[in-house]
Formats: sequence, C-alpha cells, structure tokens
Amino acid sequence: MADIGIGIVGGGYMGKAHAAAYAAVATLFETDLRPRLEVVCATSDASAERYRAAYGFARGTSDWRDLVEDPKVEAVIIAAPQSTHRDIALAAFAAGKPVFCEKPLGESVADSQAMVDAATASGQINMVGFNYIRTPASQFARQLITEGRIGEVTYFRGEHTEDFLADASLKGDWRTQGAGNGCMGDLAPHMINGARALIGPITSLCAQVETVHATRGGVAVTNDDQAQFMCRFENGAQGHLFFSRVATGRKMGYAYEIHGTKGQIRFDQEDQNALHLYTMEGPEAERGFRKILTGPAHPDYKPFCLGPGHGTGYQDQIIIEAKDFLTAIATQKNIWPTFAEGLEVNRVVSATLASSAQGAWVNVADY
Amino acid sequence: MADIGIGIVGGGYMGKAHAAAYAAVATLFETDLRPRLEVVCATSDASAERYRAAYGFARGTSDWRDLVEDPKVEAVIIAAPQSTHRDIALAAFAAGKPVFCEKPLGESVADSQAMVDAATASGQINMVGFNYIRTPASQFARQLITEGRIGEVTYFRGEHTEDFLADASLKGDWRTQGAGNGCMGDLAPHMINGARALIGPITSLCAQVETVHATRGGVAVTNDDQAQFMCRFENGAQGHLFFSRVATGRKMGYAYEIHGTKGQIRFDQEDQNALHLYTMEGPEAERGFRKILTGPAHPDYKPFCLGPGHGTGYQDQIIIEAKDFLTAIATQKNIWPTFAEGLEVNRVVSATLASSAQGAWVNVADY
Amino acid sequence: MADIGIGIVGGGYMGKAHAAAYAAVATLFETDLRPRLEVVCATSDASAERYRAAYGFARGTSDWRDLVEDPKVEAVIIAAPQSTHRDIALAAFAAGKPVFCEKPLGESVADSQAMVDAATASGQINMVGFNYIRTPASQFARQLITEGRIGEVTYFRGEHTEDFLADASLKGDWRTQGAGNGCMGDLAPHMINGARALIGPITSLCAQVETVHATRGGVAVTNDDQAQFMCRFENGAQGHLFFSRVATGRKMGYAYEIHGTKGQIRFDQEDQNALHLYTMEGPEAERGFRKILTGPAHPDYKPFCLGPGHGTGYQDQIIIEAKDFLTAIATQKNIWPTFAEGLEVNRVVSATLASSAQGAWVNVADY
Amino acid sequence: MADIGIGIVGGGYMGKAHAAAYAAVATLFETDLRPRLEVVCATSDASAERYRAAYGFARGTSDWRDLVEDPKVEAVIIAAPQSTHRDIALAAFAAGKPVFCEKPLGESVADSQAMVDAATASGQINMVGFNYIRTPASQFARQLITEGRIGEVTYFRGEHTEDFLADASLKGDWRTQGAGNGCMGDLAPHMINGARALIGPITSLCAQVETVHATRGGVAVTNDDQAQFMCRFENGAQGHLFFSRVATGRKMGYAYEIHGTKGQIRFDQEDQNALHLYTMEGPEAERGFRKILTGPAHPDYKPFCLGPGHGTGYQDQIIIEAKDFLTAIATQKNIWPTFAEGLEVNRVVSATLASSAQGAWVNVADY
Ligand SMILES: NC(=O)C1=CN([C@@H]2O[C@H](COP(=O)(O)OP(=O)(O)OC[C@H]3O[C@@H](n4cnc5c(N)ncnc54)[C@H](O)[C@@H]3O)[C@@H](O)[C@H]2O)C=CC1
Ligand SMILES: NC(=O)C1=CN([C@@H]2O[C@H](COP(=O)(O)OP(=O)(O)OC[C@H]3O[C@@H](n4cnc5c(N)ncnc54)[C@H](O)[C@@H]3O)[C@@H](O)[C@H]2O)C=CC1
Ligand SMILES: NC(=O)C1=CN([C@@H]2O[C@H](COP(=O)(O)OP(=O)(O)OC[C@H]3O[C@@H](n4cnc5c(N)ncnc54)[C@H](O)[C@@H]3O)[C@@H](O)[C@H]2O)C=CC1
Ligand SMILES: NC(=O)C1=CN([C@@H]2O[C@H](COP(=O)(O)OP(=O)(O)OC[C@H]3O[C@@H](n4cnc5c(N)ncnc54)[C@H](O)[C@@H]3O)[C@@H](O)[C@H]2O)C=CC1
Repeated sequence: MADIGIGIVGGGYMGKAHAAAYAAVATLFETDLRPRLEVVCATSDASAERYRAAYGFARGTSDWRDLVEDPKVEAVIIAAPQSTHRDIALAAFAAGKPVFCEKPLGESVADSQAMVDAATASGQINMVGFNYIRTPASQFARQLITEGRIGEVTYFRGEHTEDFLADASLKGDWRTQGAGNGCMGDLAPHMINGARALIGPITSLCAQVETVHATRGGVAVTNDDQAQFMCRFENGAQGHLFFSRVATGRKMGYAYEIHGTKGQIRFDQEDQNALHLYTMEGPEAERGFRKILTGPAHPDYKPFCLGPGHGTGYQDQIIIEAKDFLTAIATQKNIWPTFAEGLEVNRVVSATLASSAQGAWVNVADY
Repeated sequence: MADIGIGIVGGGYMGKAHAAAYAAVATLFETDLRPRLEVVCATSDASAERYRAAYGFARGTSDWRDLVEDPKVEAVIIAAPQSTHRDIALAAFAAGKPVFCEKPLGESVADSQAMVDAATASGQINMVGFNYIRTPASQFARQLITEGRIGEVTYFRGEHTEDFLADASLKGDWRTQGAGNGCMGDLAPHMINGARALIGPITSLCAQVETVHATRGGVAVTNDDQAQFMCRFENGAQGHLFFSRVATGRKMGYAYEIHGTKGQIRFDQEDQNALHLYTMEGPEAERGFRKILTGPAHPDYKPFCLGPGHGTGYQDQIIIEAKDFLTAIATQKNIWPTFAEGLEVNRVVSATLASSAQGAWVNVADY
Repeated sequence: MADIGIGIVGGGYMGKAHAAAYAAVATLFETDLRPRLEVVCATSDASAERYRAAYGFARGTSDWRDLVEDPKVEAVIIAAPQSTHRDIALAAFAAGKPVFCEKPLGESVADSQAMVDAATASGQINMVGFNYIRTPASQFARQLITEGRIGEVTYFRGEHTEDFLADASLKGDWRTQGAGNGCMGDLAPHMINGARALIGPITSLCAQVETVHATRGGVAVTNDDQAQFMCRFENGAQGHLFFSRVATGRKMGYAYEIHGTKGQIRFDQEDQNALHLYTMEGPEAERGFRKILTGPAHPDYKPFCLGPGHGTGYQDQIIIEAKDFLTAIATQKNIWPTFAEGLEVNRVVSATLASSAQGAWVNVADY
Repeated sequence: MADIGIGIVGGGYMGKAHAAAYAAVATLFETDLRPRLEVVCATSDASAERYRAAYGFARGTSDWRDLVEDPKVEAVIIAAPQSTHRDIALAAFAAGKPVFCEKPLGESVADSQAMVDAATASGQINMVGFNYIRTPASQFARQLITEGRIGEVTYFRGEHTEDFLADASLKGDWRTQGAGNGCMGDLAPHMINGARALIGPITSLCAQVETVHATRGGVAVTNDDQAQFMCRFENGAQGHLFFSRVATGRKMGYAYEIHGTKGQIRFDQEDQNALHLYTMEGPEAERGFRKILTGPAHPDYKPFCLGPGHGTGYQDQIIIEAKDFLTAIATQKNIWPTFAEGLEVNRVVSATLASSAQGAWVNVADY
C-alpha cells in the first residue's frame, strides 16, 4: 500500500477529529493509501507544537504556507476558521495538491466560487466537510429515496438545532460576531447540504432570520442564532428548514422527515444509528414506522463492526470522510460532496439572508 | 342534580362521540347537570332513527329546526358539516339555547363573525369543539408556559398531519371538494387553535398551500391537502405550522415543540399521555427531556382514573369538552374556547390562503 | 333494544369505572342490551347515596344482599375488595344472575374454585375483570401470535410494575397488610393473565417474593411489594414475570416482550396505543421493529373512533369489558376470561408464594 | 511521549478493532504512551500477512510465541478464540509483558484462576475486554449509583440479547459447538460483568439454560442459545439476567434497568448515547424519565467530541479500553476490570450452568 503525507491546517475541534481519522482510517477501511501525519498548523508555534505532540504529527508550523508547500504534504486538510479557507485552498491547488476543506466552503458565494474555479483549473481532487450526511443511516436514507422506496417526495422538513447559546447569560465571543459565524453561516450549511443530498436542489425560498439574544454581557451580538425558511425543491417538493443554536434541550438536532407518496423516512442525529421507515405496504393493521438499526447491511458500516446495532459515532463520520478523500485521490475521481456542493450550499445561505431582509420569496439561482 | 336535555345535530363521527360523551360525563365528573339524550338529528328520518336507537336518544328527526325548537332540548350540539354550522347556531341562539359547535366554527370569517355576534347578542353560552388542546398533557403544557417554566417562548413548531388521503389511488369525495373541506379548512383549525392557546395570537404569516394529488379517479380535486406557514406571534416568538392529510405514515400527527429561554416542551398526540419537558436546571450531566406520563396531578385526568400512566384516549377529550360545556351552562360563565376563538382561528385560515395566493407575508388582522 | 338492570357492588376506583362504562357502552358499541344503572352498593348508606347521586344510579344500598336480590338488578358487577368476592358471587348465582367480578377472582384457590363451581352449577354467565389484556393493542398481539406471525414462541418476558409504594416514608394501610392485598395478590394477576392469554398455561415456575420496605410508619408490613418468577409454559417457551409496586418511576408498567422464531412483539401499557412488531422478512437492511399505532383495523378500536392513532385510554378498556359481558348475557355464551381463568391465575399466584417459600421450582398444577 | 510496541494475537473481529483503537488512541486521548503496531498474529502466515498489510503492523506471524517473545512487542493483546487465552497470557506474563485479554478471560474457572495467579505472580498489568461497561453512558450510570443518586438499589434487570442465530435455517459452525462458544460462554459475560459493575457481587442464583434450536443443518447443536437466571446481589438487591442469541429483532440488546429507593436508571445499548434517569424529586406533575444524551460532562466522552449528543460508537469503546490499558502500563497501576474481574464472571457462568443442570438455587462462591 502506498503512503500519503497529510497536512492539517488547524488543530482545534476539527483538526483533532481529522488527525484521529487519518490515524485510524487505513486500519478500518481497505484504502489504497495509508496516511502519514506530516504537518499540523496552528496560529502559534507553541500551539502547533502542542498539537504535533498530542496527535502524533512529524512536524508543526504556525504558517499554513509552509505546510502547503512542504513536499512531504501530499494532501491538505483545512480545519481552520472559515475566513482562512479560500486562501489556503487556492495556495494548495496552486501547489498541485488535493484539498479537503471543512464546511462552510467559503465565507461567501464569491469566495466559494473562486475556490471551485481554482479546483477546476488545477484538476485537483476536492471535497467539502459535510460529515452528517455520511452516517450509515443518512446514506441509507439517500439510497431508499433514490430507489423510489417512498415514491415521489412531497414534503421535506429538516433542522439543525443545538443549544450551546441558549443560556442568555453566556458572554459573547467570536461566535456571536459576524454573519459567517452565525447560525446561518455555521450550522445551517450541514442541513442545507442534507436537504440537497436527500431531495435535490432548492429553487426558491422564503426566510426568517433573527437574533433571539441581541446582547450578551452588554455587547451587541452581530449575527443570527435562529432562522427558518420554507422552500420549493426542483423536483416539486415543498420544504421547511429550521436552524437554531438557542434550541434549549437540543444537543445534536440534525433531524429530518421526508414524506413520499409511498412512504416516509424520519431521522434524528441524536439517535444516529436508527432510521425510521414507513411504507404503504402490507395489511393496514401491520403498518407502522420501522426503527431500523444500522448494521453491515448499510453503507460504510461494516468496516467499523460486523455486528448490527453496535453503532457508529461522531468520530466515525470523519473517518468515512477520510476514506472517501483518500479513495478520490487514489482513483483521481472526485467523490461527492466536492467544492461545487459547498458553493451551492453557500448560495442557499446567501438567498436565505436576502429573503429575510426583504421579507419575500427569492430564487436561489439569483444569489 | 338537575337534568339538562341534549340535542345533537349529526349522528356521524362526531355526533356519536358527543352522544357517548354526554352519556358518561356526569358519572365521571362532578357536573352540576346530568344530561338526558333527547333528540338526535340526521339528514334522513331513517338515519335519524338509526342513530336514536344506537345511541339511546329519546327521539330522532331529520329537521334540525325541529330539534332546536323542541322544548326538551335545552342545549344544542352541532356535529353536522361546516356548511350547516352558521344557520343552526343562529337559530339555537334565537331560541335562547346554549350552543356547542364543532370546529371549524363557520365556513368563513364572515360566517363565524355572524355566529359570534349572535352568541353575544343572545347572551347564551357558546363553545367550539377544539378537543385536542384538552388532553391532560396539552392542558399541562399550557400551564407550564403560563407559569414561565420554560422562560420566554422563542420558537413554536406545530403540525397536524394525518395520512388518510396519502394513497393517490383513493377516489375523491366531498372531502376533496371545496376549500372548507380541504386540509386548511378541516385539519388546520385544530393546530392553529393549539398554537394560539399555547403561545398566543399570530400577527403575521407567510404561507404555501398546495394540492399534492390534483386529480382523483379522473376528477379534479378542488381543495388543498398540504400546507405550511411561517409566522410571528404577538409575543415575538417565531413559528412554523404544517398541515397535511397526505403525510404517509402519520395517523394523528397533532404535534408541537415549544422552545423557551429556560426550557423546551415537546408533544405528539400519537402518544397523547406523555409530555416531554426539558429545563435548563440541575447539573449539566443530568439534563435531558423528561417523559412525563399524565396522571391525577395533571388537569382533568383524575376523574378518569386514579392511577397515573393509565391513560386517557380520544373519546375522553370529548367528555372533557362536555364537562366544560355543562359547567359553563350551570354557572352561566363562558369557558374557553368560545366562538370568539373559533372566529380568530378562521381568520388565520383566511390569511393563510391569501398569503399563499399572493406569495407574500400578510397581517392576520387584515383578514 | 332490550334493557338490562345493572347492580354494582362498590363505588370506589373500579365501581366508578364500571358505572361510567355501563353508562356509555351502548352508545359506543352495538350491544343488544342497553344498561340501566339500577343499584349501587357501598359500606355505608351515606357513601352508597353519594355514589348513587354521583354516578346516576336509581338506588343505593349498604347491603350487597339487597342489591343481589333486587329484581330490577339483572346483572351483578362485583367491584368491592377481594375478601367479598366469593360470597357476593355465590349469592348472585344462587339468585340466577350473571356475574362480572373484578380481579383477583377469589382471595385463594379454594375461594375461586368455589366460585367456578357455583358459576358452573348455576349455568350463569360469568366474567373476571382482567382489563389490560383488552386494549386493542394487546388483543392484536394475541391475534398475531395465534396466526403464527412470529412463529413459535421461544421466550416471554412480562411485568406489571408501578411505583405507588416506592416512597419508603409512606405510612402503611390496608394495602400493606395481608397477602391478598400484596403485590402478588393485587398486581400480579393482571400480568399472569396476560402471559396465559398470550402464550398459554404455565406449567412450572421458580419464584422470589419479597418485601422491600418491611416497616412503614413503625408498623410491620405483612405482604410483599416485589416479586419475580422464571417459568416454563406448556408450549415449551421459557418465561420471566416481574411484579412490583416499588418500581420507582414506573406508573403503568404492564409490559411484555414475546420472542418468536420468526419475529418479536413488544408492548408497554404506558404507551398503550402502540404495538411493536419485528418480523424476519424483507431485505435485512429494511428490518426493524415497527411501531404500529392502533386504529380501526385492530380489535375493539373502531367503536371509539374512526381515526387510527387517535387512541383509547384506561376507561375504554372497562367499556370493552362491559360490551363483552353484555354480549355474553345477550347470547348466553360465555366470553373469555371467565371465572375459570380467574381460578387458574389464582393457582399461579399460589404456586409463586409456595415456590418462594421453598426456594425451589414447583409445578403449578400442584396448587 | 514514549512509544510502546503493541502485539495483537488475532486479526479477526476484535483483532481489527484493537488495531484500529491503538492506531487512534494517542491522537484522541492524552496518553503517556504512543502505540506502535508491531506484530499481528493469525493462524496462517498468509492471513497474518493480510492483516499486517491491512492494519499497518510492522510484522505478521502465525506463531503467537514468536509475537510474545519479540522484544519489540511491549504489550500483548489477546484477540484470539477463548481456547487460546490461557496459554498466551501465561507466556506473556512469563516474558514480563502486560496483557489485555478479550472476554471471556478463560474457558473455565480453573483457566481463569491460573491466569489471575500468573498475573499476580508476574506483577504485570492485566485487563479483560469488557467494553460495553465503558460507554460514557454506562460509566455515568455507575457513577450515579455510587453517589446514591437513586438511593438503595432494590432490583436489577439486565440482558444481553442478539439475534444472529435466530434463523433456524442457519447451518451450525464452531459457534454452535462447545459450552465456551455458547450464549452463556460468549454473550453472557458482558452483562454479568455489567451487573457486577453496577450493583456488585452476585451471591446466589437460580438458572434456566437451554438450546432453542437443537439441530442445525441436521447436526446437533452442543451449546446453549438462550438462558436466564434470577439472583440475589451481595447488597441485598433482587436481580434477573437474560441472555439470548436467538432474540429475533434484537441486534445489540445489552440493556438494563436499575430500581432504587429514590430513582431508576434505564439503558439500552441499541441507543448507546442515551441514559434514562428518573428521580423522586420535584413536583409530582413534573416527574418522568429524563433522556440524558451523553456529552463532555460524562466520563470519557470529551476526547471524542466537544459537542454533547454528537455520540460515540462501538469502536470508541475499544479506544477507551486502549486508553485505560496504556494508562495502567504507564502508571504501573492496574485499572478495573482486571483478570480478577474476568475470573469472577467465569464463576457466575459456571454457577449458572450448574444451577440449570440441578434445577436449583446455588451459591456462586461454590463455583
Ligand atoms: N463538520 C463539523 O462537524 C464541524 C466543522 N467545523 C468547521 O471546522 C473549521 C474549524 O473549526 P473548529 O475546529 O471548530 O475551530 P477551532 O477554533 O477549534 O480550531 C481552529 C484551529 O485553526 C487554527 N487557526 C486559526 N487561524 C489560523 C490561521 N490563520 N492559520 C493557521 N491555523 C489557524 C487554530 O490555531 C486552531 O487550531 C471551521 O471552518 C468550522 O466551521 C467546526 C466544528 C464542527
Ligand atoms: N373535533 C374533531 O376531532 C372532529 C370534528 N369534526 C367536525 O365535526 C363536524 C361533523 O363531521 P363528521 O362527524 O365527521 O361528519 P359525518 O359525515 O360523519 O356526520 C355528519 C352528520 O351530520 C348529519 N347532517 C348532515 N347535514 C345535515 C343537515 N343539513 N341537517 C341535519 N343533519 C345533517 C349527517 O346525517 C351525519 O349524521 C364537522 O364540522 C367536522 O369538521 C369531524 C371529525 C373530527
Ligand atoms: N381491574 C383493575 O384495573 C383494578 C381492579 N381493582 C379491583 O377492584 C376491586 C375494588 O377495588 P377498588 O375499587 O380499588 O377499591 P375501593 O376501596 O376504591 O372501593 C371499594 C368499594 O367497595 C365497597 N365495599 C367494601 N366492602 C364492601 C362490602 N362488604 N359490601 C359492599 N360494598 C363494600 C366500598 O364501599 C367501596 O365503595 C378489588 O377487587 C380490586 O382488586 C382495583 C383497582 C384496579
Ligand atoms: N468484546 C467484544 O465485543 C467481543 C469479543 N470477542 C472475543 O474476542 C476473541 C476473538 O473473537 P473474534 O475476533 O470474534 O474471532 P475471529 O474468528 O473473528 O478472529 C479470531 C482470530 O484469532 C486468530 N487465531 C485463532 N486461533 C489462533 C491461534 N491458535 N494462534 C494465533 N491466532 C489465532 C485467527 O486467525 C483470527 O484472526 C474471542 O475471545 C471472543 O470472545 C469477540 C467479539 C466481540
């Protein structure tokens, strides 16, 4: 098996998750490439060294250009704040290296467009970090829909809700400043991606974006913490998406229900190993939502465990991403979701903010 | 205990439910009045006689005026189609009798307004049949909110979803003709009432109303089967309501979640004896949604059973309505929800249809 | 429709439930007989009069012999403490009247045997009040098993758990004195009946019966509050039953799971309108427990409501019992569960106490 | 950070799980030792080489003595069938190396005793692979009980149920031959360990062990597939444990409920990120089982993810074991569960088989 040198920009929440994923992925999956943890980059030399030692990288640096240009780094993972994504990605493509970028792709549609253009121009493999759609359960949901198992989709309801800012007495920080760090910029992309993956493109929407807790510790909050939109999908289905980080009681509320002419699917990430399926089949008296526990019969489960119901967790999603990224590199064929998907998600975010400001329906294509 | 003669117009789904409720209510609750089932009215003499015999009424008639004017009938229950509600109610008030009218109050805002005016002019007790808000669980939810148990309400999501028209091959009938019999006319009033009861008046909304199955058996369907709106409540909370009778797999999807600054409440009528409450209290490690089973400690439960968790059902909601109606008559004090509430619900329905037609936000007060 | 005069001995918890059931049953079900509430009996004239007025009986009495002999009473319901069941039943049969007796049938096997003998000798209709097995869900579970839907039954786990005596600081009362009022005497009969109804006779068992809170308010408790047994059913299945009234947090824990060679059924009375069914059918990836909501497709549901998922409650079980009792009387054909079932349940209780005392397996037939 | 060379005997189900765990553990946790995957051992050179390449070991071998004696191997993981555990462990201790052994410890009490003696004599760190008790949820359950959060424990119900042998048409293999590979030998140890960890030692028990499917493909099955016992714990609590691999529909039924005088805890591994807690606190009307989602506030969760509710999975349990084993080695202090726990679990298995054979209660200490 060939090796591949990995460089990760960022050693925080997601930097660590990717480091652990690349450490384990080749043992779990039959990848063609075995990763070597080469360089980790953080804002200071001290923190870079700390991450290097903790995660087992060969080298640390506080300069992402250094990382990008290091010949030992053969693939770049961007796990730094969204404001850095564009420049790092462009440099990596220029250096002829494949790039995995955390969500959201860019801070704006323009940035994401530039990133897509650069990816295309370079011909390099590119992928964006929408991990939740990669659970075995959500992959299976996609498959069921594609196979027509629930008929034509008539309605979609999705949400990404958490409560880490529900307590009004929490002081503000960078998360409560700037649209990119708001609920629409930060949480919404996951479920917008989910909706697109499961149902298809969103053509028009009407949104309501707001800030429930307008000041924190006496300081004005400059971004949103709760938002919703109604929408129409390209395939005709009606939809509703809701996003909140003040949803008291919700910890990982990435949840959806999909109504079809022949069945319904329900999912809630808080019980990520179960998918609920109803089909209009069999005798009336025996119909009901089936709670399907994920197992080796579902996508990307078996490498983690041969036993059904034994369950995968958050970290495993990142491992699945790593597997897909390595596979794309090995085969030189992009695997969904590429930067192009990240761009389309940004466009929906953009349309949402515009619609809310205007108090009117908007066409997503106009953004 | 004094007796009171009951007349019920309609002997179908709800006529039967009310007949059974009045047969049992005085045994279960300590009402001041004991009902006598006097007259039942249906469209033909034959069916009226059938209902009379089956439900135990003294007399049957095919003329609701006959029922209304019978001196033995001291209280009138309207359980006939919505097109009849207005005329029957007006006649009953004119005859000086209290009226309980099934939802929706009138077929239009104008009809409902006329009914409210007649009620007021007559000074008679009046009540509208929103039964779902009367489960012990939903009454308790109202109480929790009123007491501030979850803080300020920040978001409300409600739905009333069923699937009795989900099968596209079902032939159409009266239910698939005429706005009043559509999903907005028929199902939506329950949850609009629920939202108002739990959160308060809706000031503005933006709606999407549609017909998923446009023809049935070759005949055009002339009303909606799926609808949603986003809204703003008078108290500032954001909201979303969804209504469907094509929600494959949903049988009694009267469900809501209420986000507050200090907690969250969740409820689903499909498990009507449980209320889920989260509060931002106690150590982080012990927080979670509590599944509270209804019992004698909750409103209107104890008369049905001394044991908690033993559960009430659909028919019991109608008995609670009967108890409240008899109490209102005995005390000559109206009990919520009166016709005035029915009128406001109609107004929201009206605004919803207008908003959808216009593709724009509307103020409810304008309808 | 012919009338039938009802006399109820006892006006407490169950006396009221039966009174309300007989008031409503003929309106809900197409019974051949319409009940008249004739006489209610309680320990004092004052309480009898109170019940009479509250429940709508024609007459009250403090002497059950008076009730039994009143020619207007054509059917006797025994809803007084177990110590009274035997004598009242024998007198009623002697008077040529059908008898419905609350569970447990007698206080002992000997008493129950005498009651069965008297019933047989008199040729009168007789029924015992095991209401929980009569929910639409549990009736449907029986049906599924009978039809072989889950194959051969291999294991049964049942429990009847509540927590009304969980609080150790509660003072004792009659419930904490005497075996007949203990957990085995009072709660266990329901689930023993359930196990027998679902799986069949129990041939042998090994039990552990105990008193968790041995004194209450300084007074010794003389009966059990927690018990379990393992058993073998006649059909070969292994089983386990558990009973507790100190099961902190459990309100109506009448619950069971039934393993079969082709499927599994799970039920919990705390969500009495749902039955969970798993079958070894279809593609592995789509298998799971189906949550079936009761509806018109299930036994004895439709008379309560035409809508599936709308739900029945505790009081409705008593109405179903009333319907069956009236039907048995009208057709002069006994309907399960008759006194014979009550006797067999007593035998299992008796075997359980003996097994626990001996610390050994026992054959049920020996008791 | 110092390195440590890891040798794993076995490259199947658990061999792979441990390999992946050691690849990732030092990135996720702040261990003092960073593992190097040195040697993997399997039955043939070919399979050893396959595992070596797939999991990233330096070397493969088909001789476990070779692995044990290799100076680069500084810690031995035994993930081969139970028949091999004793000899490998003894050799590893003799070679002065710490040993982690998969469950069950030995095939018999005698074997396990020998392993405990060898561990003691050598003074080497030793640990046994009971992974399920290591989920954040179950660790938290232990903590709650220890802190007296649910008062005195009065009842424990545990099960380990799966359905991989439920289909009677499955041909037999090594799993259906020999007591050690039966349901008691293979599945039961996990939940016996769980019961001991949560409640404490089991003093006496009465068991029923059986083979539901006695032949497979015409060949006699020589071990059990379903078993249960009632028991008494040292602390006085009553208990029931059930084990099955023919529990149709159950995929990972490691589940328990623990009744206490002040509360109750419920857990089901099929939703391993939730713990249900009821406490006898606060107003009656607000009591209910809380569904607590695991998060950084719970044991061993934070290293996997900073977000609560994001969830851990099966593989993460093995990583937690690896962390504990490395910590024990680094600090030279054993961490529960050591071989001593494995021995006590074997003793309960032994007592169970004896009790079932005798049809009587037995004292665990006698086995
Ligand atoms: N897919 C998912 O579930 C999640 C994705 N994310 C995304 O991951 C990215 C990183 O977020 P977190 O890990 O939560 O942030 P974090 O604050 O935990 O870590 C950020 C890291 O980036 C480094 N960094 C910051 N600026 C840098 C610069 N100019 N050059 C080099 N390194 C720099 C910091 O030193 C730090 O190590 C964001 O784009 C975020 O939206 C975050 C959380 C969850
Ligand atoms: N609260 C709730 O849960 C429900 C409320 N409803 C409401 O109850 C009302 C009745 O609906 P259903 O009982 O479902 O209808 P249904 O069709 O089952 O019964 C209608 C009854 O009204 C009688 N009727 C019709 N026209 C009449 C007339 N001109 N004069 C006298 N009798 C007449 C019919 O003979 C029949 O007995 C409607 O307003 C409906 O919206 C219906 C179902 C559920
Ligand atoms: N099926 C079920 O779900 C339940 C069944 N039961 C059973 O119902 C029966 C009654 O129990 P509860 O209603 O809970 O008791 P309760 O204490 O609430 O009522 C007992 C009634 O019997 C009357 N009574 C007592 N001794 C009498 C006598 N010698 N002559 C005439 N009347 C007498 C009392 O005045 C009182 O009205 C018992 O056998 C009990 O096991 C009780 C509760 C639930
Ligand atoms: N903790 C848990 O959740 C689980 C624990 N186990 C336990 O793990 C152990 C291994 O079971 P599995 O991985 O399921 O078995 P497996 O059959 O998947 O793998 C066994 C491995 O051991 C190797 N092996 C067999 N005999 C050997 C010998 N004499 N010398 C060297 N290598 C040998 C085989 O080549 C194979 O690689 C067993 O003790 C089992 O009880 C198994 C499954 C789950």
